[in-house]
Amino acid sequence: MSEKNNEKITSRDVDFAKWYTDVCKAADLVDYSSVKGSMIIRPYGYAIWENIVSILDKKFKETGHVNVQMPMFIPESLFNIEKEHVEGFAPEVAVVTRGGKEELADKMIVRPTSEVLFCEHFKKIIKSYRDLPLLYNQWCTIVRWEKETRPFLRSREILWQEGHTMHSSAEEALEETLKMLDVYKDVQENYLALAVVTGKKTEKEKFAGAEASYTIEAMMYDGVALQNGTSHYFGNGFAKAFNIQFLNKDNELETPYQTSWGVTTRMIGSLIMTHGDDYGLVLPPKIAPTKVAIIPIGEVEEVVTKLTNSLKEKEITFLVDRTDKSPGYKFAEAEVKGYPIRLEIGKRDLENNEVTLVRRDTLEKMKVSIDEAISKIEELLVSIQDNLFEKAKKRRDSKIYEVSTYEEFLNTTKEKTGFIKTTWCGNQTCEDKIKEDTTYKSRCIIGEVEDATCVCCGKKAKYQIYFGKQY
Amino acid sequence: MSEKNNEKITSRDVDFAKWYTDVCKAADLVDYSSVKGSMIIRPYGYAIWENIVSILDKKFKETGHVNVQMPMFIPESLFNIEKEHVEGFAPEVAVVTRGGKEELADKMIVRPTSEVLFCEHFKKIIKSYRDLPLLYNQWCTIVRWEKETRPFLRSREILWQEGHTMHSSAEEALEETLKMLDVYKDVQENYLALAVVTGKKTEKEKFAGAEASYTIEAMMYDGVALQNGTSHYFGNGFAKAFNIQFLNKDNELETPYQTSWGVTTRMIGSLIMTHGDDYGLVLPPKIAPTKVAIIPIGEVEEVVTKLTNSLKEKEITFLVDRTDKSPGYKFAEAEVKGYPIRLEIGKRDLENNEVTLVRRDTLEKMKVSIDEAISKIEELLVSIQDNLFEKAKKRRDSKIYEVSTYEEFLNTTKEKTGFIKTTWCGNQTCEDKIKEDTTYKSRCIIGEVEDATCVCCGKKAKYQIYFGKQY
Repeated sequence: MSEKNNEKITSRDVDFAKWYTDVCKAADLVDYSSVKGSMIIRPYGYAIWENIVSILDKKFKETGHVNVQMPMFIPESLFNIEKEHVEGFAPEVAVVTRGGKEELADKMIVRPTSEVLFCEHFKKIIKSYRDLPLLYNQWCTIVRWEKETRPFLRSREILWQEGHTMHSSAEEALEETLKMLDVYKDVQENYLALAVVTGKKTEKEKFAGAEASYTIEAMMYDGVALQNGTSHYFGNGFAKAFNIQFLNKDNELETPYQTSWGVTTRMIGSLIMTHGDDYGLVLPPKIAPTKVAIIPIGEVEEVVTKLTNSLKEKEITFLVDRTDKSPGYKFAEAEVKGYPIRLEIGKRDLENNEVTLVRRDTLEKMKVSIDEAISKIEELLVSIQDNLFEKAKKRRDSKIYEVSTYEEFLNTTKEKTGFIKTTWCGNQTCEDKIKEDTTYKSRCIIGEVEDATCVCCGKKAKYQIYFGKQY
Repeated sequence: MSEKNNEKITSRDVDFAKWYTDVCKAADLVDYSSVKGSMIIRPYGYAIWENIVSILDKKFKETGHVNVQMPMFIPESLFNIEKEHVEGFAPEVAVVTRGGKEELADKMIVRPTSEVLFCEHFKKIIKSYRDLPLLYNQWCTIVRWEKETRPFLRSREILWQEGHTMHSSAEEALEETLKMLDVYKDVQENYLALAVVTGKKTEKEKFAGAEASYTIEAMMYDGVALQNGTSHYFGNGFAKAFNIQFLNKDNELETPYQTSWGVTTRMIGSLIMTHGDDYGLVLPPKIAPTKVAIIPIGEVEEVVTKLTNSLKEKEITFLVDRTDKSPGYKFAEAEVKGYPIRLEIGKRDLENNEVTLVRRDTLEKMKVSIDEAISKIEELLVSIQDNLFEKAKKRRDSKIYEVSTYEEFLNTTKEKTGFIKTTWCGNQTCEDKIKEDTTYKSRCIIGEVEDATCVCCGKKAKYQIYFGKQY
């Protein structure tokens, strides 16, 4: 086993929160600056984001969406048009009051989300049913003036994408809302190897101004939930507030239906908190910027060239660590960074015509012949991806506790951390009481139920639902 | 010839400024909103930007650069550290004074450029010569509170990239400065088909805080210059101000040398103003989001499928216009959007086993057999790219006027618009006088001269230089 680099990393079972920030720093994902509440995303962290962006962007385009770029400022007067929306966001906006030398009469809010900007634009460009559906997406930075911040999880500035679509019917808009939730699920499960649950937010937890909000909730190593994406159905509330109308096929004016959906760099947080261990980051191969770290020991340049040529050909990303650090240090570094595979090759290996491969997920070490190295790497990349996903799902399933009485609810949350699966009457009073008694908030509604009672008040239950602690 | 769409487009020889904004609107590149001074980049405009980004990003990575993401805010106290820099930017910054419910003690400037943020970060991460060179780049939005704005050319919010690099020696930093100028030139000439000149900015025109600024200046259809990218050599001025030091190989502390370089969406402006005509946009194939617009007339679906399958195979982007608009309208639309090739196919073509191809640059129309259509398209794409570049270069060369007396300078600028190539003493007094007399500003210094006199004062000239009007 390699020299551990974990003097810098707190054990995750001792202090998970500390472990998390230690990994963020030790793996060179982020740094801090004098800009309080914002983070610097360092090259390695940003490369992960670039991979996520490229996968999502492809899926968005395959489902007919196009990218646009709206202004980053929203005049206060425009922001104030949709009432619920304003109330939801006003407490956390950053406001530009001075531009150049002038004090601004209409102050500018740095966008916390862009519904109103899209609505203003949609009003100008939507005229007839021929202009629908309008399937727009934007990659950008938003600002929410959070008090407590943590890298990737909660930050004043957030890199994200926001989809904004308009449809001629409520059915089509609702279908889009769920379709994009599915795209998120696909990417988070099949690329990020995260274990998630999806469902509908309660009235209390839904997005300010939405008719219904759907959510994808990933479960972290410690059983805590991370809301990893939301997809909102707006009905035609915003469209009415902004007076957006289109001529239908019968030449009559109608109001269109709207959706919006978004995911952020927070997904990087869930990668860390789902797969990481006491040695540092562990990245699923499909999202890892560098899939293989090659560590040559001594004069082995010829074989390294042969191997890297094959890796290039197969489009498998790699690095060769030729620094003057010790091999042990390099092994630890490769572990901290979470490269899926480490390939060690020394003079003795060369004599035996073999190399050493170490898979990051299990730290299992194996010797393979040089000729078989590339095919073994290909095999391992698939195996690591699968293993990380299976492990995450198994953990999630083991931490979903189904309860039917309030006593069970209270006892479970005292002893364990995970998702509580139960039934609920649908009243906010019970939701609030649960929060107060246990700190658990509703995660998402899974579906409607018959013949069940509310876990809290004992009256007739309407929904099956997950509760959980959240980041 | 097709029904012209140009009732919406002013002739470019009648009113070039009006023509420009007409094309921006008619080709669906941008729209306006209630956010004064900012633009909405619509899907078609943004797709052009995505192509430019993808080409540049690849070149940056090939030259060893990595992407990062810094905060978008700069605390006023941090911004004030480098004196010249502050003075240069203070008049045009947007300032956040309120965050959430609180008035900010240290106000936040929305970044107009990020030198100070990078410097603060570099100070933390640079320790030894092993950490150098640091080759960073960032794709982001910056804000400069401009009074007069025009789509892509001058806007309060600007999408751009900013490279920031640190080096152990002045020579290496200067080499980087020039290397990145070359990358810009490569992309602008060989992909955007722009005709440019490059050189050094005068003391008056250089970047606030730089020791030397290099520029790439593209010449527009009307002979006016567009500054299309700059690359700055900072010496170690910022590094000293921020107290950045590294241990060299002899274990002594040294101050590193710095560069920064950037290009913006303004390049889209130069695409329009270099290649566009009275029918609308004309895009070089290498940068066009859609290379072929297929317009089927009547029942020709089978051939369309055959052709689109081949185009997909060749990775040639296309669209098929199946809307219920008239063929004439569709032709005009394809012209306005500047798709390099239009492919028309009707029932009569089918009988003759042929299709009609129209190249956008010359509007030349040709019949080709269906079997040869794809190879003809491939050939045309190359030919259009070359032709646009050759035309731009020829125009540039025909509008460079070499003058040696001030009378010639004044007469030329009265009669013509273009670049004045001349010699200059190097004193700002002459530069200012030329500006006042002719509105021409210095574009760039090409090199040093011996045995020549200053075009303005008649004293010994130091430099060969371009003057020109600018957007």
